[in-house]
Amino acid sequence: MDARIRRHASIVVNHSVDLQPGDNVVIAAPSDARDFAVALHEAVGDAGGTPVYLDSSDRAERAYLRAADADDMETPDHELALYEASDALIRVRGGENATEESDVSPETMAANKRIYKPVQETALSKQWCLTQFPSTSYAQLAEMSTEAYENFVWDAIDKDWAAQREHQRQMVERLDPASEVRIVSGDTTDVTMSVDGMVTQNDDAHHNLPGGEVFTAPVPDSVAGEVLFDMPLYHQGREVTGVHLVFEDGRVVEHSADANEDVLTGVLETDEGARRLGELGIGMNRDIDRFTYNMLFDEKMGDTVHMAVGNAYGDTVGPNRERNDSAVHVDMIVDMSEESFIELDGEVVQRNGRFVFEDGFESA
Amino acid sequence: MDARIRRHASIVVNHSVDLQPGDNVVIAAPSDARDFAVALHEAVGDAGGTPVYLDSSDRAERAYLRAADADDMETPDHELALYEASDALIRVRGGENATEESDVSPETMAANKRIYKPVQETALSKQWCLTQFPSTSYAQLAEMSTEAYENFVWDAIDKDWAAQREHQRQMVERLDPASEVRIVSGDTTDVTMSVDGMVTQNDDAHHNLPGGEVFTAPVPDSVAGEVLFDMPLYHQGREVTGVHLVFEDGRVVEHSADANEDVLTGVLETDEGARRLGELGIGMNRDIDRFTYNMLFDEKMGDTVHMAVGNAYGDTVGPNRERNDSAVHVDMIVDMSEESFIELDGEVVQRNGRFVFEDGFESA
Repeated sequence: MDARIRRHASIVVNHSVDLQPGDNVVIAAPSDARDFAVALHEAVGDAGGTPVYLDSSDRAERAYLRAADADDMETPDHELALYEASDALIRVRGGENATEESDVSPETMAANKRIYKPVQETALSKQWCLTQFPSTSYAQLAEMSTEAYENFVWDAIDKDWAAQREHQRQMVERLDPASEVRIVSGDTTDVTMSVDGMVTQNDDAHHNLPGGEVFTAPVPDSVAGEVLFDMPLYHQGREVTGVHLVFEDGRVVEHSADANEDVLTGVLETDEGARRLGELGIGMNRDIDRFTYNMLFDEKMGDTVHMAVGNAYGDTVGPNRERNDSAVHVDMIVDMSEESFIELDGEVVQRNGRFVFEDGFESA
Repeated sequence: MDARIRRHASIVVNHSVDLQPGDNVVIAAPSDARDFAVALHEAVGDAGGTPVYLDSSDRAERAYLRAADADDMETPDHELALYEASDALIRVRGGENATEESDVSPETMAANKRIYKPVQETALSKQWCLTQFPSTSYAQLAEMSTEAYENFVWDAIDKDWAAQREHQRQMVERLDPASEVRIVSGDTTDVTMSVDGMVTQNDDAHHNLPGGEVFTAPVPDSVAGEVLFDMPLYHQGREVTGVHLVFEDGRVVEHSADANEDVLTGVLETDEGARRLGELGIGMNRDIDRFTYNMLFDEKMGDTVHMAVGNAYGDTVGPNRERNDSAVHVDMIVDMSEESFIELDGEVVQRNGRFVFEDGFESA
């Protein structure tokens, strides 16, 4: 076993979910990540936890979803009971084919999201971590060799997370007290939103490994303007390019895409919350130096912002604020490296990918 | 996908566990059985059930067991909650290496059995089925090519279970009302036990697929005599040969083995119930025509009997009888094909592998 797999497992168990003796943990991993699952079981045993091992096979899920009658699907109460009795959840992305669910209808996928929502909410109320195994399918998605992709993944994961936290703290201190945020990129994106009363989180690789973003929730009704998302959205195994959204009073009132627009439409029609933003995030992990068509990494890049339609994370919503509620949470990315800026209450805090607290901001 | 995999999945879902719309089902399978797991998900979707998919990886379990402190291991309450909220369980045997747990100490394995007992009991209170995927590791154990082993497994599984039930009914009608059973084989096995007040079950492939045995529970204190088990016991990845047990008042008072006796000792020392018999079974599936060092198949062979030390199945114990209780249930086989007979209340009902209701009994 590659020594980096054990190192990865140790970071997940001891840093990200910070497993304590006696904790019940669910490990959900695809079958091609079996070496990593073995290392996770070892790390859980060392930490005094008790594991249950779910196979998160996309092939099996696809087979079930195509066979089931979408109108009769029910919330898996037994999986819900599993998470209710758990302290921690480690969810591993990977699998042999990133487009495995490309022939499940968007309507069925949306129905599945809805019935699964109570399970998802329970899981997210625990100490959870989402991480990545460098599967061949994700290497292919990134147009990289498997070995190069392994290096990319493990380099992004095995880093000094305390130092990263300090770097990101400088942005948290600016975004958290701010009221109005404006994001401009070229002549295609100009959007404003309020984050007044919301809570900015510093992602130092607890819920996501790799971590490396600063994120909050917009006030649901405050979003106005338009956004062209530069990077393709991979959703349910299909690539949606050129996503363009127009917001009024927080709501998506127009949407289009250059390819696979029906997938985007399916997302937005899941429920009322799916038409509003649940997250604004700012990528700050400079060890992630390329797009790999994988949101877990792409959204952390240093010269990007991302916005998610759908569900807002509870810990980003202030005590007197409404939380946008939805069965979906779909992130999309704007490239901020050129002709772009972020304003907080009228002050530019990032220009062409450089932050105001970084060298080179003035000339950026 | 081999068409026999879908056929196998359909028999499990529609015959063995007889899944009903709305049922919650747990599918527990090793990662090399992924095609079968996909087919099971499809069949569950067709039947209107809701699946949760556990990976029953021996590598992961081994890693956990070697890392954990045996004294601190706890019952997985989250897995218990999963089964409590389930209606059915499909457990698939397979895996890439049948000896994967050969370097976990017998003491740790016994401790794990003990802490896992409440989970196991809850699982066995549901509509459960144990079946086999023709993994390479089991082909190797059977000293067969993978293709020949696939044929063997699927031939034994895809059969007329109603006809098999009728065949076995003839033995149930004799064993169920009997009091004393005597089993003799050569000059090495001569054991008597009472089955008075116990319930004989007709295994037509509901709990086990393949099925093909008739089984009951001995009255715990009644077993007396000695048994030499002809077939090696594969347990925890180690081969225990020449197991010899001597019973007095139902209890194993002497035990020995030609190889790996410590594994046998570990089993018997798990708890008090592990020293008593929990099952007497008579194999009656003539489509299983060879030993394959796999109890799920071997115990069903037509000219064998098997006895299990440890836990008795609840449905074999009569209302006024004590149930032998243990964290283990370990089956061992006596070859009855030569110089052997079974007596019920003094009457010979099987001689040299021929039943009294079969052609050829008189000359056997």
